[in-house]
Amino acid sequence: MSDDIAVPVSDCDSGLPAGGAPPIFRGVRRALALRGYATLTEFRLASGRRADVLAIDEAGSILIVEVKSGVPDFRSDQKWQEYRDWCDAFYFAVDDGFPTELIPEDCGLMVADAYGAEVLREAPVAKLAAARRKTLLLRAAMTGAGRLHRIEDPMFTQASPTV
Amino acid sequence: MSDDIAVPVSDCDSGLPAGGAPPIFRGVRRALALRGYATLTEFRLASGRRADVLAIDEAGSILIVEVKSGVPDFRSDQKWQEYRDWCDAFYFAVDDGFPTELIPEDCGLMVADAYGAEVLREAPVAKLAAARRKTLLLRAAMTGAGRLHRIEDPMFTQASPTV
Repeated sequence: MSDDIAVPVSDCDSGLPAGGAPPIFRGVRRALALRGYATLTEFRLASGRRADVLAIDEAGSILIVEVKSGVPDFRSDQKWQEYRDWCDAFYFAVDDGFPTELIPEDCGLMVADAYGAEVLREAPVAKLAAARRKTLLLRAAMTGAGRLHRIEDPMFTQASPTV
Repeated sequence: MSDDIAVPVSDCDSGLPAGGAPPIFRGVRRALALRGYATLTEFRLASGRRADVLAIDEAGSILIVEVKSGVPDFRSDQKWQEYRDWCDAFYFAVDDGFPTELIPEDCGLMVADAYGAEVLREAPVAKLAAARRKTLLLRAAMTGAGRLHRIEDPMFTQASPTV
């Protein structure tokens, strides 16, 4: 339908973060659900990169949350700025041991544990262009449906069009 | 974002058809996946009705498939025409014991078993208005993500925004 759907949206994993669902992911998703957002983890963008958490609300607003397990993980990510092109608002999520002063001030900031998350700083909003929003929502719909299909019919080995 | 999102999109079931996933659902979903569609079952429309199978492809095309387990099930459904307002193309799916001459000629027709489905008649295409398509894709994205969240964090009892 628009600018980036030509990039393949298929791959083979379950969408769960590597090594299972770390507590911080769980807390972030819970907090976002309480704010009215449905979330997908490890969401593959048209750029090929995966966003840790993509969140969508009923108004079609799209957030991306990058989970950082610690300072090395944060420092080794040279490309997080790219995520801003794919959402209305971008957050980092860290645990309460993380030195939050490292997080750039123009990013949202959540501090999470296994049970929830607190938003310490709201992210500035930079609205997506309509065509990109439409593409992202379509990709999210196909990703979610494809993952559910894999769960609900695990014997079906011919890939559904997305995960 | 548009005409029908104000209707609540929340409820409490898993999205699986009542009584588990009947074989015919499974075959329909497999056949649609092979055609490039990601599918959601028991998808709640803004009208409040549930479509048995909602299917979306990378172009944003939207199909609805109504599964009929037998003639009584088909005859008792007085409202299937309403589904046409919520998709580009509408199909019935039946098993191979169903008298297919009962299915209106202006509907698509699939004959399914547990392992796949054959399209006996393609459905006529009546393109959705852009606003409704956008709303449906958003609802599908939230539904899929919400269902995955329930599966991936079953201890989280505060509802995610959709199923």
